[in-house]
Amino acid sequence: MAVGKIEWPHIHTISGIELGVANARIKNKERNDVLVLKLREGSSVAGVFTQNAFCAEPVKLCKKHILEANTRFLLINSGNANACTGKPGEFAALACCQAIAKDTGADAEAVLPFSTGVIGEVLPAQKIIDVLPQALNNLSENNWQAAAQAIMTTDTLPKGASKQVDINGHICNVSGIAKGAGMIRPNMATMLAFVCTDAVVEPSILQIMCKRAADASFNRITIDGDTSTNDACMLIASGANEDVNIDRIDSREYQLLEAAIFQVFQELAQYIVRDGEGATKFVEVYVEGGTNQKECLSVAYEIAHSPLIKTALFASDANWGRIVAAIGRAPVTELESEKVSVWINDLPIVVCGGRAESYTDEAGQKEMRKSELLIRVDLGRGSASDKIWTTDLSHEYVKINAEYRT
Amino acid sequence: MAVGKIEWPHIHTISGIELGVANARIKNKERNDVLVLKLREGSSVAGVFTQNAFCAEPVKLCKKHILEANTRFLLINSGNANACTGKPGEFAALACCQAIAKDTGADAEAVLPFSTGVIGEVLPAQKIIDVLPQALNNLSENNWQAAAQAIMTTDTLPKGASKQVDINGHICNVSGIAKGAGMIRPNMATMLAFVCTDAVVEPSILQIMCKRAADASFNRITIDGDTSTNDACMLIASGANEDVNIDRIDSREYQLLEAAIFQVFQELAQYIVRDGEGATKFVEVYVEGGTNQKECLSVAYEIAHSPLIKTALFASDANWGRIVAAIGRAPVTELESEKVSVWINDLPIVVCGGRAESYTDEAGQKEMRKSELLIRVDLGRGSASDKIWTTDLSHEYVKINAEYRT
Repeated sequence: MAVGKIEWPHIHTISGIELGVANARIKNKERNDVLVLKLREGSSVAGVFTQNAFCAEPVKLCKKHILEANTRFLLINSGNANACTGKPGEFAALACCQAIAKDTGADAEAVLPFSTGVIGEVLPAQKIIDVLPQALNNLSENNWQAAAQAIMTTDTLPKGASKQVDINGHICNVSGIAKGAGMIRPNMATMLAFVCTDAVVEPSILQIMCKRAADASFNRITIDGDTSTNDACMLIASGANEDVNIDRIDSREYQLLEAAIFQVFQELAQYIVRDGEGATKFVEVYVEGGTNQKECLSVAYEIAHSPLIKTALFASDANWGRIVAAIGRAPVTELESEKVSVWINDLPIVVCGGRAESYTDEAGQKEMRKSELLIRVDLGRGSASDKIWTTDLSHEYVKINAEYRT
Repeated sequence: MAVGKIEWPHIHTISGIELGVANARIKNKERNDVLVLKLREGSSVAGVFTQNAFCAEPVKLCKKHILEANTRFLLINSGNANACTGKPGEFAALACCQAIAKDTGADAEAVLPFSTGVIGEVLPAQKIIDVLPQALNNLSENNWQAAAQAIMTTDTLPKGASKQVDINGHICNVSGIAKGAGMIRPNMATMLAFVCTDAVVEPSILQIMCKRAADASFNRITIDGDTSTNDACMLIASGANEDVNIDRIDSREYQLLEAAIFQVFQELAQYIVRDGEGATKFVEVYVEGGTNQKECLSVAYEIAHSPLIKTALFASDANWGRIVAAIGRAPVTELESEKVSVWINDLPIVVCGGRAESYTDEAGQKEMRKSELLIRVDLGRGSASDKIWTTDLSHEYVKINAEYRT
């Protein structure tokens, strides 16, 4: 059960981006599990990938192909992550790229492969190859919802977001889909996001934009602190909208487009948290008053990763002792505890390192019972701030993860 | 329910160390909650303390007193941590030290205060002061078990360990007690350990020994990654056994005594894990083949802190995908996944970065069902190794921590 509403939004089509789906019956027999994105010739492609040393075979191939040719196709499958599968896994991923190349006349290097699903089993390439003609046949600019559904694994809902932005009188569109219901699902290799715009964006600029947007969104969420072997986040600029041309990072046009892209990335990232495993709360952890962003983030993650705080969130218990203990053990040098304050939503719970005088357990519990929460911390030592989004730790989380393979 | 047996062992008395207990009815009315350790004049005292910035008032005072006078008394209470209590908390801790000083003629600075229990409430000093004469009255070298019971909070069992070592034909004794059932108990400020020997040990040498022993024991356990505001670990040498005099770190005598002290520290540390919140498994994570100990430890902690691995341990699921994902995201530069191997007990599950050919889920599950487990990782890049001890993450953990205050 997701926290709050994850409604499928109106998705603005992106001229130059077509989506096609098919069912290769890799794991779930009932649902499409193959997605092909066809990109307009001349599209710019940027991506950020998992930092995990056990990076999956398709991720390795994807990083190689992106350097070798102008990308024309993205091929995504769910149900199998093709991770930790070595040479056989590499050949399987390559075979799928070659099959698209053969069917379309593109180079194999112009195809980027992505996989999500169970770790440690070689991708059943032939199953995918057999249904590729079908996916290529139903390519359409209107297939966004079907695309979001095809990349789901244990997500309970498809996730999409879309914005329009007026740049010098020209409407520019940004639309994206994502999947993932934990930084890593049980034995699932997990997060994928594909965001497209019709603007013309120079590739090196697009890469900067992609990295910055991912840092402000997918790199600011945590469900269980686990990161996967297959995480990838792609930003594509089809260039079909030739009136909007972004070729300088210090331009007003860049800022306008980036703002829309940040919004789409953040909405998708927050949907992933809301659909987190066993989640009953959606929590923003906002840390201000730091000397730099890094220390704000380290405090935020210390709070968001504490099993004791996560269980207190689940229990709607404003257990401030657990929060100050987490702040205190974050790697912040010379933190002065007597300058630290903490709020739940607008309720002060810790002032100057001790319990707020006005605080009562009843008032704390009232705030904690809300399904959407803000934990705000002031470190009292500077002007930097940062924020992340997370969930609670429920009985359901243990149940899902303990029983997944049984 | 503790994992494996935590039996109360035979404790060798330490000449020069007397223990007295009393019931100040701070929180639990049924059980003693005050412990006084009286040290022989001339004892050496060493300690390591929590690194948490929200370090409790008694910890601050303890660090101050230890520099100002030769310690003659340790005063420990359970039921109240006196953490995040500011000046009033400091005065309360000091008042208790002064009361012992008045009753015994010692300086107040010769008394070290320790507290464990609920965070955020000022220590009820008068309650403690009222029962101090009783604790001082029953001081005895034979009170070790009563002492271990007096410092328990939510521990299910008292924890003690004791060794004898022959140093140049003289029997030297090492005995200790500890409390803690999580790095931090729900709203509890937690781990305390007091280990004593009758040897003569020069204070600066004792401090080195204490730090090294704590690093090899209490700093190698993790239940939930949370560290508390009150953690303290003290090593005391009464010097009553004048035949054993340790004044050089490079001596055979030092090595013999340190070995016994390491054993006592490690047994106490492992008891804390075995008595961990909701624990059903006792797990050693051993990482070898690293270029240095630091990277071995970082991999071990990444495994031990992963909620996904901990729930798989609870479910007896040899979920190797979760283990490699954890190894892969540890902060180890240029880890080559294809050189990594993993065993559960003696069963190979990952060889050269992929699933071991001989591996079957049945064989994996058979090993995982055992209540005492070894997860062994070979990083294949060097000769360093290190190990830590941890537990699983069970329904009971969520229950205990979600329901503690309700």
